[in-house]
Amino acid sequence: MSELKNDRYLRALLRQPVDKTPVWVMRQAGRYLPEYREVRAKAGDFMTLCSTPELACEVTLQPLHRFDLDAAIIFSDILTIPDAMGLGLHFVAGEGPKFNNVIRSAADIAKLGVPDMEDNLGYVMDAIRLTRREIDGKVPLIGFSGSPWTLACYMVEGGSSKDFAKVKGMMFDAPEQMHALLNVLADSVIAYLNAQISAGAQSIMLFDTWGGALSTENYQQFSLAYMQKIVAGLTRENEGRKVPVTLFTKGGGQWLELMADTGVDAVGLDWTTDLATARQRIGDKVTLQGNMDPCVLYASTDRVEQEVASVLAGFGKGETGHVFNLGHGIHPTIAPENMQRLVDSVHSLSEPYHKKG
Amino acid sequence: MSELKNDRYLRALLRQPVDKTPVWVMRQAGRYLPEYREVRAKAGDFMTLCSTPELACEVTLQPLHRFDLDAAIIFSDILTIPDAMGLGLHFVAGEGPKFNNVIRSAADIAKLGVPDMEDNLGYVMDAIRLTRREIDGKVPLIGFSGSPWTLACYMVEGGSSKDFAKVKGMMFDAPEQMHALLNVLADSVIAYLNAQISAGAQSIMLFDTWGGALSTENYQQFSLAYMQKIVAGLTRENEGRKVPVTLFTKGGGQWLELMADTGVDAVGLDWTTDLATARQRIGDKVTLQGNMDPCVLYASTDRVEQEVASVLAGFGKGETGHVFNLGHGIHPTIAPENMQRLVDSVHSLSEPYHKKG
Repeated sequence: MSELKNDRYLRALLRQPVDKTPVWVMRQAGRYLPEYREVRAKAGDFMTLCSTPELACEVTLQPLHRFDLDAAIIFSDILTIPDAMGLGLHFVAGEGPKFNNVIRSAADIAKLGVPDMEDNLGYVMDAIRLTRREIDGKVPLIGFSGSPWTLACYMVEGGSSKDFAKVKGMMFDAPEQMHALLNVLADSVIAYLNAQISAGAQSIMLFDTWGGALSTENYQQFSLAYMQKIVAGLTRENEGRKVPVTLFTKGGGQWLELMADTGVDAVGLDWTTDLATARQRIGDKVTLQGNMDPCVLYASTDRVEQEVASVLAGFGKGETGHVFNLGHGIHPTIAPENMQRLVDSVHSLSEPYHKKG
Repeated sequence: MSELKNDRYLRALLRQPVDKTPVWVMRQAGRYLPEYREVRAKAGDFMTLCSTPELACEVTLQPLHRFDLDAAIIFSDILTIPDAMGLGLHFVAGEGPKFNNVIRSAADIAKLGVPDMEDNLGYVMDAIRLTRREIDGKVPLIGFSGSPWTLACYMVEGGSSKDFAKVKGMMFDAPEQMHALLNVLADSVIAYLNAQISAGAQSIMLFDTWGGALSTENYQQFSLAYMQKIVAGLTRENEGRKVPVTLFTKGGGQWLELMADTGVDAVGLDWTTDLATARQRIGDKVTLQGNMDPCVLYASTDRVEQEVASVLAGFGKGETGHVFNLGHGIHPTIAPENMQRLVDSVHSLSEPYHKKG
């Protein structure tokens, strides 16, 4: 493997000094880029794009050609595990992900097993291996998975949901059944992320998209406990370097201390959490990732720069331990020029914060 | 007016001793009740139901015939103010509220004025007056409004929105324009709620449905500041009794102290906020309303009672200052039997918490 030329992102995750605040953006390879839309159209459907390593590699690298990003994230979907379990993932225009088979009973859950990582999910490992070759050490490559609770939401609901009636119905009425489902998912996520690390992922993100829909007690029991199990089960070193783990619960601002206590290296924040307050609360333990409102990118380009300045000032001086990101995925209709300004201004405006003395 | 026979809800809001924890439920008059669906079908469309005082009164009282509730809330919509401003509110099946005219420019905003409360919104006051007569002092009647920020979201987006692209675009790019819009809305809400109080509303709820979509700083500037203005502008006494005000920001669990400092009598909590923690944070200042996850009502009836017990225990002993509610509106597909159990078990299980000594 080529030597890593830019390790700013990994250093920040490990709380080591950096010259500038590193930046990457959730869904940075995506629909807001015309070159992505071209490849997506060529692929035909979304799952073909995910499961063809050459295409997944191509779109993973696209944002790096345009923007001075400090990390790439492998192009994939959070629902590859349930698909590999035989649920039949597909995407319906305007409605998002759908499963052919849904999980509603103890019998449905009993049939689920940890998928074979090479037979059923080898396309993800192939995409990671190929991308590591093509990226040629420019920046680190991030691997990822959805959290067990988040996967369970889609598997039980059969797709996106507004109120989580079925998955919460199961959680309240049949908690042991829900724990059985979450256990097989946690074991699968551990195997999946360790396979990604072996294939070359240099950092890991755990996306808990729907943990924020739970009460504090249910969050601890049904989401956080399984993420903690995953963090404990990961191979945290590879190629002689530590593989840092970042945990992101959307809407989890009330539970930062609980998240920091899982043993992760970094906690992702959405924009509803004040960054200065978050630093006071958990900044002595973990690196913070975030947290500009992605809607700022709908505003003028100059406004984007102002808001970058405000986020950097919010974290403040002496800033080992901050990775700049949006507080959620980038929206598909924003102008790429605004993303350009975001990345450039993070680097130019953050330098003074990293000066010694 | 008939004397109030059950003032448990008003007493709890004013932190006076009660025999049992009072309970009401957001959207308690609504689609989960077959008798509501009948009147709704008879009315034809939703706005006819809202704007016909006899029908609005009828559905307001329906849940009181079934359940031992401690308050009624006038049946109406949070978007009556923008409709009265000339935006043309209507409802599209499966898509929610829509406006014929949307607000996108300074010129659009300049045309808006505070609506005439009797000419344009008299149907709400008529419904309140009629309901007060019909309710005959059984329980207090709650009046309500959407918060200025929440109204602005719908007015600028033209309906519901997933990402608030347009309203946040305006907020970031043209903050003075957004403040002009929020100011005319705040003035309108003050006039509207004072008219409701004059017509007979005995308590006021301010619903900030979308404040939780903002960053802490933007929440303070664009949502909370205007709610504070409203709280300061309300007539807080009528018929020789205090008219308590409750503020509910969905997703506002990180900002409880800020909400409590507005001068409201009570703060509404969604289920993501731990009730015991909330009591420690602001329970010495305000009454807390909430906060059972409405999805518990999808579970079995016995499970509902368990969860009621858990919410009551979460608030704890010596409990002046708690109004039981869901953390969000009741879902339209839950079984009325579960609502029955909720109401009954709040009363039966809360008695020990209110015993002296």
